[in-house]
Amino acid sequence: MENRSIYRNISPLDHRYYQSNKELFEALSNTLSEEATVAYCVKAEMALLKTHIQLQNLGDQSLIDSLDDIEKTITPEEVYKEEEKTQHNIRALVNVINKKVPEKLKPWVHMGATSVDMLDTANSMRMRDVTRNTILPLLLELEEELIKMAEAEAETPQVGRTHGQHAVPVTLGFALAEYVSRLGQSIREMERLSSNLRGKLAGAVGGYNATSMITADPLEMEKIYLKFLGLKPSEYSTQMVEPEYLLRLLLEYNTAFGIIANLADDLRHLQRSEIDEVREFFSATQVGSSTMPQKRNPWNCEHVKSLWKAFAPRVMSFYMDQISEHQRDLSNSASARFQADFIAGFAAATSRMKKIMAGMTVNKPQLTRNLTVQGDFVLAEPTYILLAMSGVNGAHEIVRNITLSCEKTGKTIMEVLQTEQPESWTRIKVQLKKVSGLDAENFYSDPSLYRGKTAEKTRSLCSQYSSMITEIKGVLS
Amino acid sequence: MENRSIYRNISPLDHRYYQSNKELFEALSNTLSEEATVAYCVKAEMALLKTHIQLQNLGDQSLIDSLDDIEKTITPEEVYKEEEKTQHNIRALVNVINKKVPEKLKPWVHMGATSVDMLDTANSMRMRDVTRNTILPLLLELEEELIKMAEAEAETPQVGRTHGQHAVPVTLGFALAEYVSRLGQSIREMERLSSNLRGKLAGAVGGYNATSMITADPLEMEKIYLKFLGLKPSEYSTQMVEPEYLLRLLLEYNTAFGIIANLADDLRHLQRSEIDEVREFFSATQVGSSTMPQKRNPWNCEHVKSLWKAFAPRVMSFYMDQISEHQRDLSNSASARFQADFIAGFAAATSRMKKIMAGMTVNKPQLTRNLTVQGDFVLAEPTYILLAMSGVNGAHEIVRNITLSCEKTGKTIMEVLQTEQPESWTRIKVQLKKVSGLDAENFYSDPSLYRGKTAEKTRSLCSQYSSMITEIKGVLS
Amino acid sequence: MENRSIYRNISPLDHRYYQSNKELFEALSNTLSEEATVAYCVKAEMALLKTHIQLQNLGDQSLIDSLDDIEKTITPEEVYKEEEKTQHNIRALVNVINKKVPEKLKPWVHMGATSVDMLDTANSMRMRDVTRNTILPLLLELEEELIKMAEAEAETPQVGRTHGQHAVPVTLGFALAEYVSRLGQSIREMERLSSNLRGKLAGAVGGYNATSMITADPLEMEKIYLKFLGLKPSEYSTQMVEPEYLLRLLLEYNTAFGIIANLADDLRHLQRSEIDEVREFFSATQVGSSTMPQKRNPWNCEHVKSLWKAFAPRVMSFYMDQISEHQRDLSNSASARFQADFIAGFAAATSRMKKIMAGMTVNKPQLTRNLTVQGDFVLAEPTYILLAMSGVNGAHEIVRNITLSCEKTGKTIMEVLQTEQPESWTRIKVQLKKVSGLDAENFYSDPSLYRGKTAEKTRSLCSQYSSMITEIKGVLS
Amino acid sequence: MENRSIYRNISPLDHRYYQSNKELFEALSNTLSEEATVAYCVKAEMALLKTHIQLQNLGDQSLIDSLDDIEKTITPEEVYKEEEKTQHNIRALVNVINKKVPEKLKPWVHMGATSVDMLDTANSMRMRDVTRNTILPLLLELEEELIKMAEAEAETPQVGRTHGQHAVPVTLGFALAEYVSRLGQSIREMERLSSNLRGKLAGAVGGYNATSMITADPLEMEKIYLKFLGLKPSEYSTQMVEPEYLLRLLLEYNTAFGIIANLADDLRHLQRSEIDEVREFFSATQVGSSTMPQKRNPWNCEHVKSLWKAFAPRVMSFYMDQISEHQRDLSNSASARFQADFIAGFAAATSRMKKIMAGMTVNKPQLTRNLTVQGDFVLAEPTYILLAMSGVNGAHEIVRNITLSCEKTGKTIMEVLQTEQPESWTRIKVQLKKVSGLDAENFYSDPSLYRGKTAEKTRSLCSQYSSMITEIKGVLS
Repeated sequence: MENRSIYRNISPLDHRYYQSNKELFEALSNTLSEEATVAYCVKAEMALLKTHIQLQNLGDQSLIDSLDDIEKTITPEEVYKEEEKTQHNIRALVNVINKKVPEKLKPWVHMGATSVDMLDTANSMRMRDVTRNTILPLLLELEEELIKMAEAEAETPQVGRTHGQHAVPVTLGFALAEYVSRLGQSIREMERLSSNLRGKLAGAVGGYNATSMITADPLEMEKIYLKFLGLKPSEYSTQMVEPEYLLRLLLEYNTAFGIIANLADDLRHLQRSEIDEVREFFSATQVGSSTMPQKRNPWNCEHVKSLWKAFAPRVMSFYMDQISEHQRDLSNSASARFQADFIAGFAAATSRMKKIMAGMTVNKPQLTRNLTVQGDFVLAEPTYILLAMSGVNGAHEIVRNITLSCEKTGKTIMEVLQTEQPESWTRIKVQLKKVSGLDAENFYSDPSLYRGKTAEKTRSLCSQYSSMITEIKGVLS
Repeated sequence: MENRSIYRNISPLDHRYYQSNKELFEALSNTLSEEATVAYCVKAEMALLKTHIQLQNLGDQSLIDSLDDIEKTITPEEVYKEEEKTQHNIRALVNVINKKVPEKLKPWVHMGATSVDMLDTANSMRMRDVTRNTILPLLLELEEELIKMAEAEAETPQVGRTHGQHAVPVTLGFALAEYVSRLGQSIREMERLSSNLRGKLAGAVGGYNATSMITADPLEMEKIYLKFLGLKPSEYSTQMVEPEYLLRLLLEYNTAFGIIANLADDLRHLQRSEIDEVREFFSATQVGSSTMPQKRNPWNCEHVKSLWKAFAPRVMSFYMDQISEHQRDLSNSASARFQADFIAGFAAATSRMKKIMAGMTVNKPQLTRNLTVQGDFVLAEPTYILLAMSGVNGAHEIVRNITLSCEKTGKTIMEVLQTEQPESWTRIKVQLKKVSGLDAENFYSDPSLYRGKTAEKTRSLCSQYSSMITEIKGVLS
Repeated sequence: MENRSIYRNISPLDHRYYQSNKELFEALSNTLSEEATVAYCVKAEMALLKTHIQLQNLGDQSLIDSLDDIEKTITPEEVYKEEEKTQHNIRALVNVINKKVPEKLKPWVHMGATSVDMLDTANSMRMRDVTRNTILPLLLELEEELIKMAEAEAETPQVGRTHGQHAVPVTLGFALAEYVSRLGQSIREMERLSSNLRGKLAGAVGGYNATSMITADPLEMEKIYLKFLGLKPSEYSTQMVEPEYLLRLLLEYNTAFGIIANLADDLRHLQRSEIDEVREFFSATQVGSSTMPQKRNPWNCEHVKSLWKAFAPRVMSFYMDQISEHQRDLSNSASARFQADFIAGFAAATSRMKKIMAGMTVNKPQLTRNLTVQGDFVLAEPTYILLAMSGVNGAHEIVRNITLSCEKTGKTIMEVLQTEQPESWTRIKVQLKKVSGLDAENFYSDPSLYRGKTAEKTRSLCSQYSSMITEIKGVLS
Repeated sequence: MENRSIYRNISPLDHRYYQSNKELFEALSNTLSEEATVAYCVKAEMALLKTHIQLQNLGDQSLIDSLDDIEKTITPEEVYKEEEKTQHNIRALVNVINKKVPEKLKPWVHMGATSVDMLDTANSMRMRDVTRNTILPLLLELEEELIKMAEAEAETPQVGRTHGQHAVPVTLGFALAEYVSRLGQSIREMERLSSNLRGKLAGAVGGYNATSMITADPLEMEKIYLKFLGLKPSEYSTQMVEPEYLLRLLLEYNTAFGIIANLADDLRHLQRSEIDEVREFFSATQVGSSTMPQKRNPWNCEHVKSLWKAFAPRVMSFYMDQISEHQRDLSNSASARFQADFIAGFAAATSRMKKIMAGMTVNKPQLTRNLTVQGDFVLAEPTYILLAMSGVNGAHEIVRNITLSCEKTGKTIMEVLQTEQPESWTRIKVQLKKVSGLDAENFYSDPSLYRGKTAEKTRSLCSQYSSMITEIKGVLS
């Protein structure tokens, strides 16, 4: 076995990120490593052999079952050694299998298949498996954390911000519910797309030329082969499965990545010294800066955003790999191997975000302070609406001028209204009572009352996506 | 009206490509130009006003209908002039509308809405409309051209190529059926995604704060508003509709773009001097090169590929625009405007490809020559399979050595078999007759017989996608 | 003349951004529009004709000069009309020129050239001219604004931030000097690269085949031709000038774009409600939000960042255009036309940033408040250093524990030191006096004293780049 | 030591590509692996300690030298173990060093530095070293192979191709000289940029705050520190070295990558079955296809192109990493780690291309066949030029019509001229003799005579870049 210090590896995935998250990366290795690639190709070759046994009456079920044992004995080392001679990875694999199967099956190994019948089928399997066995469960855990916190903070007042400026109130739970919904929708898409990856046994150019020499109905043969592997045939193969089945899944990965990166950015900014509304977990022995002992940095959120920067642009490689001349050129071969890196990078980011959410603490006093630091300034909007609804034209401009005056004098909107525009104040009081039953003095003293349907919507989304989690878990298991 | 010579424009879309395809670009202008953007925003404002009329009982159906007439009178010039003062495009629009509606409606203009309630809703409408009114019909026309040619050439023999090397035979129709299928699948996706764009009336931070001051059920109010425009509410709005509805549609645009670019590349290479199997239309007066009078260049295919290079990387902008801090920053505003360019670029490429397909001619003698130039070399695969099926082990290696020998001596595979390996030849003859009923001498003399299920699959896909075209046309009309 | 309402244009560059910045966009049109492209190609054709006159003795200097007058009479309309017949843009241009030159010159029009000898040469000229006549002067104006503000605020205390957390003090001028330096370096690069664009007259495949039929020294002929246009020959031409001369300039554009986007982001965050250290200019009649009258959004900074998102990914098109098969395929033709959009987008962002800087106001009280809001917390670093230098081991850990204690008790570092660790306090006092001459009580009461060399470095960089501006202006004029 | 089967790694760089090119990847590991990263950081810490020894008079040269021995004893395992406690990689490193240095140096370890003073300095060193010790030598070897083949084939006739269509003749050496020149220019750029990477010792926010507590001239101290490491200070540091020094180098890597990918594409297409002008080395035991025994695929060229697809889009990550808020956020940390993958991917592609060039064989008969397959068709250009120079107007159109006639009748241009336009033929004969001394019958019978200056230019470029190789080797050693 070719062992090597992980610290001699090039890719951070294979040293630093593996090191800091071994459980996850061992799971990923089970589908994404070179060992796994070889194993999945062996599975495909064995499925083809089973198909021949069945269609050509070469043996009974026990012969078919015996192949599963042989399958387990094949190691990447053997295959790589053989490849040194053939310079062709699948031919090498075929030679290795050939040595291990019963004499009468030897001529049937790989018979009728082109390499890519195995490689693309194997790749669809491993992409399906990594998504459904590792990534989706991880995403569901993150979704659960999001729901948990969104529900817990469904009523916690927070100032809503647009352009980084105080706008109108929301609740912290509502701000998190954004991600419950967006990530939830993406999870659904990934489940759908990962169950629609395809395999093929259509031969060198997709025309079933070779299998037409073996059986009268090569499309049926393809179905039997793929059924052993839990896949359906692609609609149109060249030498390859058409790229779009997998492309759409990878694009959705990147969509989910963008959502998680957005969440990371939101949390990152909420941790700015001046805002300070939430905090990542920070252990007692942890060091924030090697030179500034007081520092507590949002480095986990920064890490997630940074992984997004590293991986998101790689979608261009996926798009470029759509183009393959005629019945295929090989110029997507090396590039497609790096899909493994992309998925591992996404997994690392998702796992980190889950950890962030699980350890996040909320600074309620600061949430209140930020919401009210400018008094009732965040109530300029309802002021204008109530005034307009009471029949005043140009209300927006009136209130805009009030806020300019507030800025100069330091007064609140309520103070200006009461002292300088008593008639408007009366209109507002009446109108507010009418639409909401609220008392104007209370309302202007506690901006958090102007929270719209944020709490209700938070709860409704959390409930909806809790159900989705249950549903998807059922589908995956 | 601000008129200007098109030759002073910066973007090729607004001079060269407009100039060469006015009909298409005028259609695109109806949804993608600045004029259209303003018009769609007016539509949204008017829908809001209608919602107020209905919910607040401000008038009857005739008042509602009267707004449609006012709608038509608003020009971008007016709005731009007002924006010079407000420095805010939607406030400018509101001021313009305000001057035109009946007195009693004035206070209700834009009431309860934030700018983006209008802008994002308007954008979903125009993206829906451009896709369903212009792009999908165009794609269906291209699909029809592809089906027409694929059916016509369903039996025309062509050498299949992998790695640019002769592999085994296909038919020209089968090679085109690849695009019938891939593009067909993408058309289906675009139809689905374009019918799922969303609007919003959830206010400044998505919390229905403002509309809660106006009505007891602001979510219902949002539905009424959007129903006037044929849209459904987004699941979770911040200030904006969550970006993924549109993102997924744009990603699918790029997926279709990749498919069309792949087709362009295939056709481009088939027109190489040495291959020369198909030719773009070339008029009698057309000049191929300013210095080489004999040139007939595949410049339309090159053009399509080039447009793909120009536009495909822009998906990174779409992905970056997923990230908006907290309840929104504006850093997606300018960038999102350029989605119009992206769609126009895609339309130009699709339109050109349709024209290419419609004018494409086939050089049958050259197709035959290429298929047979290396004699029966492209039958190495069935030779090995037939040999193996007859019970010979190591057949692949045996045939590989025969081909090496052919290369040295210039003999055909059949000649080598007949003269040097008569026993193998007999096995092959028997086996071939058994599986296909074919005579071996005929088979080796006419490689086009080894075409697998290419013709059948071509016809089946053409039939399937002809039905799809009818179905989608029905949905769109 | 083909006139059209700008509001029917597709690209925001040709309506919205043109509209809001006409002076700049008219300047850009002079080099980047289709009109300009035609004009530059005419210049190239005329230079070739002058070369023939000189080498073939077809006339004297007055004949050469007369071509300059003819040059001015050619309009894009004529050329486009002719192209409808030829379907070839340069052949069309040649036909138009042919009609206008004296009889004896007619056979010499375009003689020996391939279209790209004109097109690539013309493109190098317009890229050179737009960069040196429009972009660099604009960048220098922005650089001047940066220097002005950096110098003015060279001593204005500001809290330095890493990870969005208060770190140690800087000055506002120092923070701006970052961009003086980074942008200054990029300006220098752009000047260098824009003076190194190349032309060619090497014929259809770069081998001087055609010109070898005309003159014994075709490389010399190429030099004469290019000298008329102020260019040098490319080192190796295929049909095209090798792409890297221009590529490197475009990459540097994107580098400068990233620097400006970074500045926009910095200023954007400094305008957050909670930070509020600087503010964009906001006119008295300007509206921040259509629904929240109090809003003052950093929308110009957001706009700049957004343009970066729209344009930065287009570098991938430039890189893809490096690849052209054999002596050239045309698949870079359409894509390269969009370089004009990229440069216009960059110009729009630069121009906006210049305007932002010119109107920026500084909120000094808030700068002070932010710096001191956590008392002397930002002095944890010098505390640890002074302690360590006084000979204490593990000083970082000691001070880290002090800051934890401060957080719990609300005390300052100085208070904790004085009350709980008097010996350390004494060491610090002595050490501080020794290294800086400062009194510890003063120092801990005024964190802005711990500003390192920020003011000095600011001034030195401002001075250095003021000189650079003068130097580059000299080179450009 | 943490050992692990390479087949469990995720990234193809750490299994498949490592496996197939161990010598190269071990060299890369010496600068790019995690082990190397730690080692370079240790070097930086030791340089800082040496600076303190020198400035603070803590010992003599022997103390300074003794640190080099300590340096070698530090392993990544120790550091990672410590990091589990500190959760901070540089603090962990500092703790490890602290245990190993003499007592009196302990307080001075890392004194005055922020982590990034070490990390960015270390990164500049390793990027400099990998470029100058591994990448540039590899590129020079590739350049040598290119020169060798270009010189050898300087006179070998080949048909020049534009748009994939036969244009006019070149030589094979000339076609290769394109890459001698383009890659040569890029090598020069990489040498220049790799010698201009910078380090820093400017502290937490770049203001020299900490070092101002230690020395009166912290800028001088920074210079001393960096001189121990062979670097110069960055012009303006925030917490980080400004990103553009390294960015420009990475962009040039990608530029070179594009050049190599273009070469790969050219060679790939020259190996098409129908063109067949060159061939990659193919060993006797090698298998081209697992099902088509006759196949010889240009898989190495396809591999190089594919690596370009995988890595080129990553420049977007580099550009995104330009943006870091205020004195730095950490969102470039993870992403920048993957620069190692990018460089390794580039190295793999370069190494493969070198191997391709070294094993490339030329099929001269096929080169001749392709050049002459259309008779004298590739001489349409000189026909038109000679005719025009003899005083005939409209010569291009005359010859265009001749070529149309040739296409219909199968005649050569010479035949048509001689039989149908004897006067033109005479003009051409006379004119050709005049400009070239060539006989027209010979010329039209042997199109390779129309090769312009291709052979001369090939030799001149090969000579120029042979000198450059010698020069750069001198600089690097």
